[in-house]
Amino acid sequence: MQFWFEFASTYSYPAAMRIEAAAARHGVALDWRPFWLGPIFAEQGWNDSPFNLQPAKGRYMWRDLERRCAGYGLPLLRPSRFPRNGRLAARIVIGAAGEPWLPAFVRAVYHANFAEDRNITDRGVIVDLLEGLGLPSAALLASGESERAKEALAAQTAQAQRLGVFGAPSFIVGDELFWGDDRLEDALDWHVRHAA
Amino acid sequence: MQFWFEFASTYSYPAAMRIEAAAARHGVALDWRPFWLGPIFAEQGWNDSPFNLQPAKGRYMWRDLERRCAGYGLPLLRPSRFPRNGRLAARIVIGAAGEPWLPAFVRAVYHANFAEDRNITDRGVIVDLLEGLGLPSAALLASGESERAKEALAAQTAQAQRLGVFGAPSFIVGDELFWGDDRLEDALDWHVRHAA
Repeated sequence: MQFWFEFASTYSYPAAMRIEAAAARHGVALDWRPFWLGPIFAEQGWNDSPFNLQPAKGRYMWRDLERRCAGYGLPLLRPSRFPRNGRLAARIVIGAAGEPWLPAFVRAVYHANFAEDRNITDRGVIVDLLEGLGLPSAALLASGESERAKEALAAQTAQAQRLGVFGAPSFIVGDELFWGDDRLEDALDWHVRHAA
Repeated sequence: MQFWFEFASTYSYPAAMRIEAAAARHGVALDWRPFWLGPIFAEQGWNDSPFNLQPAKGRYMWRDLERRCAGYGLPLLRPSRFPRNGRLAARIVIGAAGEPWLPAFVRAVYHANFAEDRNITDRGVIVDLLEGLGLPSAALLASGESERAKEALAAQTAQAQRLGVFGAPSFIVGDELFWGDDRLEDALDWHVRHAA
């Protein structure tokens, strides 16, 4: 199952924290696909998160996220700045496809942004998170800042658009798209019933 | 619990079909609140459903609705025209507050639009649905077309906006807003845990 996520996306936070254990329970292998919502939103004429552009929806989202995180037992500290540009982290993840530490790094970035209000746009924060996992931060940072990584994120974002992805998190099982943290279990069930 | 719905709204269809039985199972009394999304969308600068304005999201919604209706055992026939103006039906429902036939009429209107592709904007279709329930269609139609009913729907829509409602279906329990058919059970659980 493909897991499409964006580090700036609020509902991607609980999905990212839950998905590895949930997929394991269903016996489903995961393909981690970070992408960038910016160009997808820009196509709608949006220059900001819809949760900022639509204040009533934004107020609702923060309360709903709070209730859902409480239900999952996940900490939530509303970021003092939203959305935060998570492209550096996304480019490091794309370069780390197949690495055993990838899921832990993804969770560390989400936790920093949504449970600790740390600025994940800052290189120093990303270095801290990599070193907290015992990883070679200088090499990974250089790789994440390379032209090649920028092109890889742009290509992955273009692929998301071709697949019909319009928001995050999204899950793809065969030809079926599921959108939203609240569709994670539906997507896994679909995989078990149809793809297995 | 307040149930805010709009006859044009796709995800309001499964919510409307499910809510009376689900609320009864939870021992929760329902307050049926039809409203009109038009002015709420217009405030966002939208002159159409976001599912039409955003094609990728619209394609997803129809497939997601299909999967969810199948899961609920509800028939779905994609309407040949979307959205359909459901204001006449909404005004009849507002005038019928407390009537024992209200839930059945709401379901009949949704079924006509989303399972039979009937034009619920047409007075003749509304008359048929009322008569199918053995109701005095001429009197109810006259009441639904009155200035008083138009004012009542406008007032109820303004109240929805004041309560933070930005989409349909929405459920309100105390100060808590829940949005979407997929939050119906959460709203009922919240009522049982906090309001009861």
